[in-house]
Amino acid sequence: MKTMEAILKRRSIRQFTRQSIAQEDLNTLLRAAMMAPTARNCQEWEFVVVRDKNTFQKIMHIHPYAPMLAQADCAIIVCGNTQREHAPGYWIADCGAATQNILLAATSLGIGSVWLGVYPNEERMDGLARILGLPESVKPLNIIALGYPAEHKEEVDRFDPAKIHPEKW
Amino acid sequence: MKTMEAILKRRSIRQFTRQSIAQEDLNTLLRAAMMAPTARNCQEWEFVVVRDKNTFQKIMHIHPYAPMLAQADCAIIVCGNTQREHAPGYWIADCGAATQNILLAATSLGIGSVWLGVYPNEERMDGLARILGLPESVKPLNIIALGYPAEHKEEVDRFDPAKIHPEKW
Repeated sequence: MKTMEAILKRRSIRQFTRQSIAQEDLNTLLRAAMMAPTARNCQEWEFVVVRDKNTFQKIMHIHPYAPMLAQADCAIIVCGNTQREHAPGYWIADCGAATQNILLAATSLGIGSVWLGVYPNEERMDGLARILGLPESVKPLNIIALGYPAEHKEEVDRFDPAKIHPEKW
Repeated sequence: MKTMEAILKRRSIRQFTRQSIAQEDLNTLLRAAMMAPTARNCQEWEFVVVRDKNTFQKIMHIHPYAPMLAQADCAIIVCGNTQREHAPGYWIADCGAATQNILLAATSLGIGSVWLGVYPNEERMDGLARILGLPESVKPLNIIALGYPAEHKEEVDRFDPAKIHPEKW
């Protein structure tokens, strides 16, 4: 799939079939994530890849908007390793860029995905850290639920000229 | 260009030719940015598009790693509007994802780009706010310098299995 096509077609998918994602495709998504830029090329991301349905149940208890995990084939928890980042606070946008690469790579492979926000919600961050055994220095940004789509969403166009400011605000 | 090809080929480009980027292509980059997901679909991004060389000079005075602006055709300053975001702190990762869409769309169009970090560096944020006249509630995440590439960078593979944690940390 062409780059702009993937960018325009990506939508949040919350209903999944039972088809499993091949490990090779999952590795493609993770490679895509690791090709995103990071401040001073620190590559401070870490990825927890969950397929265990018991873990999904635990996550659904601490995250109020994660019911689609009951159907998901797997999930990638994108984390920032604060011991590796260039300076405090850079991990957030860097991991946001890595997440976007995962979503686009998934779209291009026909895999559905949805980004469930975790940071900066402390309750969700603490809950996930406990469930996944994250060290204090590793912060979860989000949970990306993944699976083959069982719903179709039309393309939307969010282009809004009012958000563009030529030369100055 | 295919999605994975753009993801794998994107590199930080800091040397540019004098060729100008067509307004239509610039709009494609901005449309790409606005197709990224945001928490609760708040679309809290704002984009200042600078072509004025005097503004580039001012930015080079407050940003220590921006010498390539002297060659750049234009720059997009990706900002988060904190009055629009879902809850405090969500704009950072959301604008990181929008930035990545710009970088990939640029790559697919043969346009070179580099992400110059601004947030969370307060000196750079304050300097940019002053130069661009940003309101207090609008925070600059980065400066994306853009132009047609005058350097070639080989593909690298940053895939690192050590960053992947199956099921738990």
